[in-house]
Amino acid sequence: MERVHNFSAGPAALPPEVLQSCAAEMLNYANTGMSVMEMSHRSSAYRDIIDDAEATLRRLIGADEHFSILFLQGGATLQFAAIPLNLMYKGRASYILSGNWSKAAWQEAQKYGDAQVFASSEASGFSCLPQLPYDESMPDHSLCSTLDQTLDYLYLCQNETVFGTMFHTLPYTGSTSLVADVSSCFLSGPLDLERISLAYAGVQKNAGPAGVTIVIARRDLIANAAARNDICPRYMSYSVQDKHESMLNTPNCWGIYVCGKVFHWIEDQGGLEVMEQKNWAKVQLLYDYLDESSLFHGTAAPSDRSISNVCFRSTSPYLDNAFIDFAAKHNIVNIKGHRLVGGMRASCYNAVPESSVKALISCMHEFESQYR
Amino acid sequence: MERVHNFSAGPAALPPEVLQSCAAEMLNYANTGMSVMEMSHRSSAYRDIIDDAEATLRRLIGADEHFSILFLQGGATLQFAAIPLNLMYKGRASYILSGNWSKAAWQEAQKYGDAQVFASSEASGFSCLPQLPYDESMPDHSLCSTLDQTLDYLYLCQNETVFGTMFHTLPYTGSTSLVADVSSCFLSGPLDLERISLAYAGVQKNAGPAGVTIVIARRDLIANAAARNDICPRYMSYSVQDKHESMLNTPNCWGIYVCGKVFHWIEDQGGLEVMEQKNWAKVQLLYDYLDESSLFHGTAAPSDRSISNVCFRSTSPYLDNAFIDFAAKHNIVNIKGHRLVGGMRASCYNAVPESSVKALISCMHEFESQYR
Repeated sequence: MERVHNFSAGPAALPPEVLQSCAAEMLNYANTGMSVMEMSHRSSAYRDIIDDAEATLRRLIGADEHFSILFLQGGATLQFAAIPLNLMYKGRASYILSGNWSKAAWQEAQKYGDAQVFASSEASGFSCLPQLPYDESMPDHSLCSTLDQTLDYLYLCQNETVFGTMFHTLPYTGSTSLVADVSSCFLSGPLDLERISLAYAGVQKNAGPAGVTIVIARRDLIANAAARNDICPRYMSYSVQDKHESMLNTPNCWGIYVCGKVFHWIEDQGGLEVMEQKNWAKVQLLYDYLDESSLFHGTAAPSDRSISNVCFRSTSPYLDNAFIDFAAKHNIVNIKGHRLVGGMRASCYNAVPESSVKALISCMHEFESQYR
Repeated sequence: MERVHNFSAGPAALPPEVLQSCAAEMLNYANTGMSVMEMSHRSSAYRDIIDDAEATLRRLIGADEHFSILFLQGGATLQFAAIPLNLMYKGRASYILSGNWSKAAWQEAQKYGDAQVFASSEASGFSCLPQLPYDESMPDHSLCSTLDQTLDYLYLCQNETVFGTMFHTLPYTGSTSLVADVSSCFLSGPLDLERISLAYAGVQKNAGPAGVTIVIARRDLIANAAARNDICPRYMSYSVQDKHESMLNTPNCWGIYVCGKVFHWIEDQGGLEVMEQKNWAKVQLLYDYLDESSLFHGTAAPSDRSISNVCFRSTSPYLDNAFIDFAAKHNIVNIKGHRLVGGMRASCYNAVPESSVKALISCMHEFESQYR
């Protein structure tokens, strides 16, 4: 079998050039006589790898030394606890609930302080983003006048993978820190570090293999001891990890190495603005098809559609399953929707080529002409 | 450059057959049309990989379904907190301090309860194991009559990587749970599940690439909610992870896949008893040389010597450094001792062949004849 059209929501497609390079270097990386998996994380060879990965990422997202970049483990789920443990100095934060991931983060935060709901779209099944009380007298999505000034932070998930919705513009929160789970849109386009105080991402969408979580945080926010240092596991303290440059203990060396290769690949593609244009162009093909189709329809509110996760359905669960099987016969895989919502989902991350999206549309067209 | 003689303390040498297989499958695993790094962790292809890894490990260590096997992230450092968070029901545990790793675990546990010192060899610079108050009237290293029966657990680190010491026999602790960090002797030989209630290991010594932590625990110990469920991050709850079969969130898919290959390789070598014989045979060559040498000497008490980490020195730090440079010219790398102790350390894990050990001894011999 050749390589498939892989629309997995994550872990997800990686650039073939990156995989080829990993294979070629497997037994002898850069003339060291060993695999990257066999290297001491304290060796100069590995130090070069992680330093280069960080420097390349800084160039891509435009993060200067005011931001710390951490390569951690444990996924978003561990960050759900790490964020309140590190940042709840005053013991109060507010969460925007736009899907299951932001809701899970909010539930976990309740262990560590007063985690409030700022806004929620759960009543509409998370098919759209919640309405936010933007201050119309101020330009550009400002929440300054409506935010409780005693909050430690306002939290949101920029792109909800399961429901296929996305904040295209992040709110302006003034002196209140904005904390963003950007896992499924990380490196799909530029990261708005003008507005974000702390962003984190599991890398297994656009940036690398599962097992690495990248935290990007303003140093002035995390420089001190953790807010809940009394109970915060040392591994989870941002200030400790920052001081040890992500090497408090052995990191996921292989995962960081692959991330570095992906960062270079993105740079070679032209950087994040180019990626963003390409990604919108790809998914727009799908959204346009869905808007015209009489069998398939998109499930997310059109104004809130994701740059990557295109969620859709046919007219019945029976036909959904028939289509998933039909697509598999055309080498199109991982388009089953998340178990919470059913239907289909095509995740069109950076490494999914436009040719795969066109193959999917062609397959939908063929199916539609047979089963409508 | 060819492959080197790699004595790294971890991440460490992997079997070349495993690396070759990883490279061969990189772009298309088992005819799936994708890399293991690109697979949904919920796919049947990946389910087979993790299930096979777990089943192979169960055969190797002889763990039946009374034991849970978890594939987690965050390394030993995260376990230092997870253990008290999950197991300190009564709020009291006791630690055997035999090196920096057990000491770090003890320090972390103090955040969550009354973490006592059962015995310590710190006064002798951790060059030997602490004397334990074995009950001489009972056979085989029993601590039953000397253990405080109100303890939640007794903790030890079976092999201290930095100092090169090892408990060759684990104490018998009766109804008190024995918790063991077995990171640097995991799969060097059989695991004593008759005595251990919970063992954990970062896999980057004998079992795989950094980024996977394996926890092996009696189900009756971890079946209930975590002891400190009120503050335990959900990711760190053993009962939650057990219920989700290590898939509460996306695991380190690639790391687990490589571990599975290493488990099969060990099985092909003849299993853990054969590995143990081979490992002792390898390091005995080195220990014998050290005991005869007039330039080099081992630093760990002979009765407590490690099965893998052979720590030694010459007569001066100057000659130590000269030898490290000399060895590098003979393709022998990663023999510098840990920064806490200096000197040299040759870690002879499963994947380090006897030919590498012989090359090191030959190099020591040559150096000794020149510099004595």
